[in-house]
Amino acid sequence: MGRRALLLLLLAFLAPGAAITLRPTLRTLGSLHLPTSSTSRYAVARNYSVHYFQQKGLAGHLHMSDKYWKKDGGSILFYTGNEGDIIWFCNNTGFMWDVAKELKAMLVFAEHRYYGESLPFGHSSYKDSRHLNFLTSEQALADFAELIKHLKRTIPGAENQPVIALGGSYGGMLAAWFRMKYPHIVVGALAASAPILQFDNLIPCGVFMKIVTTDFRKSGPYCSESIRRSWDAINRLSNTGKGLRWLTEALHLCNPLDSQDIQHLKDWIAETWVNLAMVDYPYASNFLQPLPAWPIKVACQYLRNPNVSDSVLLENIFQALNVYYNYSGQAQCLNMSETTTRSLGSQGWSYQACTEMVMPFCTNGIDDMFEPRLWDLKEFSDDCFNHWGVRPRPSWISTLYGGKNISSHTNIVFSNGELDPWSGGGITEDITDTLVAITISEGAHHLDLRASNPLDPSSVLLARTLEVGHMKKWIKDFYGRAGKEE
Amino acid sequence: MGRRALLLLLLAFLAPGAAITLRPTLRTLGSLHLPTSSTSRYAVARNYSVHYFQQKGLAGHLHMSDKYWKKDGGSILFYTGNEGDIIWFCNNTGFMWDVAKELKAMLVFAEHRYYGESLPFGHSSYKDSRHLNFLTSEQALADFAELIKHLKRTIPGAENQPVIALGGSYGGMLAAWFRMKYPHIVVGALAASAPILQFDNLIPCGVFMKIVTTDFRKSGPYCSESIRRSWDAINRLSNTGKGLRWLTEALHLCNPLDSQDIQHLKDWIAETWVNLAMVDYPYASNFLQPLPAWPIKVACQYLRNPNVSDSVLLENIFQALNVYYNYSGQAQCLNMSETTTRSLGSQGWSYQACTEMVMPFCTNGIDDMFEPRLWDLKEFSDDCFNHWGVRPRPSWISTLYGGKNISSHTNIVFSNGELDPWSGGGITEDITDTLVAITISEGAHHLDLRASNPLDPSSVLLARTLEVGHMKKWIKDFYGRAGKEE
Repeated sequence: MGRRALLLLLLAFLAPGAAITLRPTLRTLGSLHLPTSSTSRYAVARNYSVHYFQQKGLAGHLHMSDKYWKKDGGSILFYTGNEGDIIWFCNNTGFMWDVAKELKAMLVFAEHRYYGESLPFGHSSYKDSRHLNFLTSEQALADFAELIKHLKRTIPGAENQPVIALGGSYGGMLAAWFRMKYPHIVVGALAASAPILQFDNLIPCGVFMKIVTTDFRKSGPYCSESIRRSWDAINRLSNTGKGLRWLTEALHLCNPLDSQDIQHLKDWIAETWVNLAMVDYPYASNFLQPLPAWPIKVACQYLRNPNVSDSVLLENIFQALNVYYNYSGQAQCLNMSETTTRSLGSQGWSYQACTEMVMPFCTNGIDDMFEPRLWDLKEFSDDCFNHWGVRPRPSWISTLYGGKNISSHTNIVFSNGELDPWSGGGITEDITDTLVAITISEGAHHLDLRASNPLDPSSVLLARTLEVGHMKKWIKDFYGRAGKEE
Repeated sequence: MGRRALLLLLLAFLAPGAAITLRPTLRTLGSLHLPTSSTSRYAVARNYSVHYFQQKGLAGHLHMSDKYWKKDGGSILFYTGNEGDIIWFCNNTGFMWDVAKELKAMLVFAEHRYYGESLPFGHSSYKDSRHLNFLTSEQALADFAELIKHLKRTIPGAENQPVIALGGSYGGMLAAWFRMKYPHIVVGALAASAPILQFDNLIPCGVFMKIVTTDFRKSGPYCSESIRRSWDAINRLSNTGKGLRWLTEALHLCNPLDSQDIQHLKDWIAETWVNLAMVDYPYASNFLQPLPAWPIKVACQYLRNPNVSDSVLLENIFQALNVYYNYSGQAQCLNMSETTTRSLGSQGWSYQACTEMVMPFCTNGIDDMFEPRLWDLKEFSDDCFNHWGVRPRPSWISTLYGGKNISSHTNIVFSNGELDPWSGGGITEDITDTLVAITISEGAHHLDLRASNPLDPSSVLLARTLEVGHMKKWIKDFYGRAGKEE
């Protein structure tokens, strides 16, 4: 999968539901993809082996590394793959590679069914809702459980070792849920940036976009205010053919705008701000596009003055968008249609959002810098039915996994970056001694899972130290119990 | 459903897999049905209301009673229905009715999908394996979870009350698993005679029939030895046409035996001994058939001398069988075909046994009184495929629910009667302070769940006292936590 395909995939995921009207695929959403960046230079140096695991007609795809694994006193770190090709997560979860030696750990990255190469019905997997029946979080957890049992059966030395689940974003939710539902299989879980409360009105629907707004407000004077004013400016300019032509040129769009594109244009711009909030990392990243360190700050340099004419404001908006889409200066024009292209991965998430993963999003234009948009379950459900022939079950995830009522479980670390809009749906306070929250004040979307970087802020260094401490304790407790049983 | 239908249902379930070759439905098995008895006279006095709960196209069937329920400080006792009509469990779990007042409890008996009236596709529910896709223990637990959420939403006063899961046999397994998988929904579980280890070689396959044998050995001198010798006697007698005619007459069979019926005959007799072991209650019971107190003792009175001719031995066997099939003296003849008649319920369990509920059984004729029979997974699987078009997943239940490795869970009481052959697959030793085993030395299959009876032995009285104590503690802890949160 080339860089371009990955880009499309990411963009499709990164659209927050609230900002979009026309496309159910995107509206659903809530960008759960791992935004990845500068670790690619590390990735090339990593050695892993690729495996396929035959499981009920599915050739599950996984990557493994045993470079630092020790049979004596070792452990197994198991990445619970999210909605995408596992190689992406494998190459962009540098933290696991960085701690492998200290934990004498075998690394396993398991692909989620229906993503990447793990298509249970091959090219027909997305044909209709019948073929999609097995695309659920429960099935993913069951696959992970079967896979771990298989590995323990077949790899000499693995059988009596503790397994720890790790994941970020949706993968982080899966890691937490895996520990909750299969505590006999994993001794603990590190759930990074896992918005397990982003369901069923467990939190206010506006939290996500409010955090995006805060990120922009704090990254430069009048930055969020400039963006807030930009929507009306676009509305006014798009009232005339002349204004539309001007906008097309000012924003360097590849295709001419017509009046029906305006909602799409605004959605695309809003998505860009969300993307920037998620990947607002402290160092330059070059995975999606070459991005500078603290990209929101860089974008906000162009958005210091909201009290300008509509045309000046939109010229400034273009400069800010350009930070995201054209930091390298290579792009000839900006392509709005990129976000609507569907990779297999985005299809899968759209289906999941239309069944289990129903995340309410909304904006009010006051607490956030976006145009007001209510969460409309009825409309969402109708879109899902038209698109997939299914209707969402908005309460099922909290019925199944407990919502906020999870205190009877143990050994889960929930980490969240304060800059990350998904932290609003995360567990950010300790629940018990063994259900622990770690907050990374300078972190965007699961910064802690990324490879070590000289520019890492102290908050993420501390978080990683705490995380390793918890994992070591789980491993030690496991061997302590095993010793007693002998 | 009349008495006759229930009888057929029970018999179909009560066949231990090991003793049968020809019918996959029965071989599967391992009799998981609630043997019920003298509580029927209480049942008529009980008042319950019948409800239907609309859940994803399924009109789930449940019975409820709020006679003793208190909104202030009350609780909800939730019977996790097994493989049969819920009215059967409702009328034969007298323990719940007996403790309702003390626990200020609402009683709910929820029917398992695909049994009784809870047919997700109506008359087509058993049409083929596609229609049976939703017949799993996971789906049953999910239905129970949705139902409880629904009750809490719709019954004023129920919302903030603790729910306790209770069940016997397969229903007991479901109660335990429900607490393991949905600890946010039920505060604890009473799992009576729940053989959660009867899977995946977690215990030796011969344990079940060994316990049946012990019951007979202890119930009269030479009793089990007489039965052990009876199989060869049958084999010898059935070698000739004359012998077959003699056997038909001596056993008072309704239909003449031919040489192809001999395995069926032996299976039917073996099933009868298993049935007796399960319902070996200390008082007369009259649900299936009028049965005396301690029916094995009564049967064994006819089996005191193994050193007799084949024909005398078989005449004695008939007298013992007659205790089970004709204690009232009303039967004109004994009908072997009763065990092969399929009610809907037995179909359902056959399918479950051919998918998830794979219970290995075997006999060796030395530790038990039966003809030797190995557990043959391959043959079993082929039978399942021929019958249902599916193949069993013998390890799935232990992968899903943890097998013996369940110590991270809390608040489950496992009760087992020492006379009950299913106790061999049960949890009979404490695992932690809150995963507790209660053994009832004079108890058959979940005697503790039955209504109080003047002839109850002290061991079951003590067990019930302990069980109520645990439930009260769970309820108290629940209100203690709720108080703190206010």
